[in-house]
Amino acid sequence: MNAPGTGNALVTLSLAELHALARDTLRAAGLGVAHAEAIARSITRAQADECHSHGLYRLLGYVDSVRSGKAEREALPVLTRTTPVILNVDARRGFAPLAIEAGVPALIEAAQTYGIAALAIHDCYHFSALWADIEPAVEAGLAAWCFTIGQCCVAPAGGTTPLLGTNPIAFGWPGPAGRPFIFDFATSAAARGEVELKRRAGEPLPEGWAVGPDGAPTTDPAAALSGALLPFGGHKGSALSLMVELIAGPLIGDLTSRQAKAVENGDAGPPLGGELFIAMDPAMFGRDTLSQRLDDADALFALAKAQPGVRLPAERRYAARARSREGVQIPSRLLAEIHALTQGDTEGERTRR
Amino acid sequence: MNAPGTGNALVTLSLAELHALARDTLRAAGLGVAHAEAIARSITRAQADECHSHGLYRLLGYVDSVRSGKAEREALPVLTRTTPVILNVDARRGFAPLAIEAGVPALIEAAQTYGIAALAIHDCYHFSALWADIEPAVEAGLAAWCFTIGQCCVAPAGGTTPLLGTNPIAFGWPGPAGRPFIFDFATSAAARGEVELKRRAGEPLPEGWAVGPDGAPTTDPAAALSGALLPFGGHKGSALSLMVELIAGPLIGDLTSRQAKAVENGDAGPPLGGELFIAMDPAMFGRDTLSQRLDDADALFALAKAQPGVRLPAERRYAARARSREGVQIPSRLLAEIHALTQGDTEGERTRR
Repeated sequence: MNAPGTGNALVTLSLAELHALARDTLRAAGLGVAHAEAIARSITRAQADECHSHGLYRLLGYVDSVRSGKAEREALPVLTRTTPVILNVDARRGFAPLAIEAGVPALIEAAQTYGIAALAIHDCYHFSALWADIEPAVEAGLAAWCFTIGQCCVAPAGGTTPLLGTNPIAFGWPGPAGRPFIFDFATSAAARGEVELKRRAGEPLPEGWAVGPDGAPTTDPAAALSGALLPFGGHKGSALSLMVELIAGPLIGDLTSRQAKAVENGDAGPPLGGELFIAMDPAMFGRDTLSQRLDDADALFALAKAQPGVRLPAERRYAARARSREGVQIPSRLLAEIHALTQGDTEGERTRR
Repeated sequence: MNAPGTGNALVTLSLAELHALARDTLRAAGLGVAHAEAIARSITRAQADECHSHGLYRLLGYVDSVRSGKAEREALPVLTRTTPVILNVDARRGFAPLAIEAGVPALIEAAQTYGIAALAIHDCYHFSALWADIEPAVEAGLAAWCFTIGQCCVAPAGGTTPLLGTNPIAFGWPGPAGRPFIFDFATSAAARGEVELKRRAGEPLPEGWAVGPDGAPTTDPAAALSGALLPFGGHKGSALSLMVELIAGPLIGDLTSRQAKAVENGDAGPPLGGELFIAMDPAMFGRDTLSQRLDDADALFALAKAQPGVRLPAERRYAARARSREGVQIPSRLLAEIHALTQGDTEGERTRR
């Protein structure tokens, strides 16, 4: 591994070095080895796809939540079945990646056997990218969704008070082969992190992202952060955000975003909550051959991409993934922050949200 | 029934009169009795909820598709199971309402037995409101979705050529008791009918609804109708629209919007295609009591509604439904058009799309 430089030069790490750095940093903070390995895998995949918000940067929040005592350090997830197609993983207040690894193979098997299945992850701290959560199911040939709550900072459309989380939705389809269609987006107009980046940069927000604490629309990032973000797409996005609250919360017996906020300790890590997966196997649905139907879907993607200006959701990540086989570029400042964590330097403990 | 007046006065019909008018008009056009009754039920429910686009007005398009020979007049839907949780109804090129009535009770039973189930309706002409399609499942205590393609008039975000349908999504949650949360919206910024209403009224479109045939953004309804509508909510709505194409099309072995357009006969009725339902039973998901979880959801709805300016999706319909017990108000001009259909008057055969 190259030594981290000063300033914000970029340092190249191999994927193995990145994984080891993430794992060893989490272990040094006191996290059990099974969780440290699962989070390191999650972070490495996100960084390889140049999904920077969920890559190595995420380690700072994970370490905060280990140190604050929020996440159980050694809790091993427990998989149970209510029926052959309803699976549950009790994460026992541990981080989500290990619980997801415990549940998704069973979800895949159930969907391939019965055509459709659901997996509820309970009582987890979810801090990973949803596209990565469903990718194994999609690569196994399934159409799959996952849903989770987020930080409670979003007002319903027409309202002005935070009630909803950023409530992301991910969906994937098992084609085109090798580069499946997968999207993953917050149902808020923007992620809270995007608003913070605008504030740091001194830039105004686009119209429609937020209201201030007085309830009036604002383009001032500081006012937005003390007011409320808004859903994307008006009342339609708001309805989808409520749907996510319902199915990742009360449906599975887990917290709504607002309930999660009430038990939040205010560290830089994720809220407590649940996650719902649904997977369907196209091979188990009726008519025509599967290959004909996958071809029909591929034709749809090809026609979309043939229009100048249209980009399919995962394209940018797949291009990054190909580049990252040779290694990833990490800002030296981030590397220094992470090394400081291990050395007990307090710089690593700043609040980063 | 009051005699229809002239001009656009409102005429009051009881729900029984409305049902009989719809059924008898369809029968007179040559439609088999099972379909005529199912469509009459569908139209009466929509009209009672003052969902005018899917109420009595819809009869004009149905009659066009009976007369044009598009829809099979007598085809009885056939229900089969691929697995205990994957149900299929072959609508045999008939209208959707009868096929939905044939499939949804089995979907409810499968979801209540196994926790999750899917129902694919194949080869149907879908012209009803999606909220009504899932309402029986929601009233039976299930969370449920349905998805179908629509008329191919929507460009993917960033593009300028129609490739997607209006592709609606409906979702319902079995609470609050008696007035469940159900939403139903097109994934296009607006329905094609809304654009036509703007054109007739000589009003410009809001920004972001459409591009003209030259691919440039337009607020001119006529240019929009010969160009393309856009998805709601930018790339997020566009991703959702593609998702609907995939799961209501290739997943179940049915047509994409573009494939449906290629076999369309151009009457005023609906495109050929499929519909996917997914239902989940909250009682079959793990933790806490069901009543506690339904209470948590009700608290979320109450907090949303407590914010001035926030309205839950189905509220307006439930208020209309309560009013409609005494009867519904139908414009006399629409009644005259419908009576003309039965009398063979060519005024009823104008293109209405």
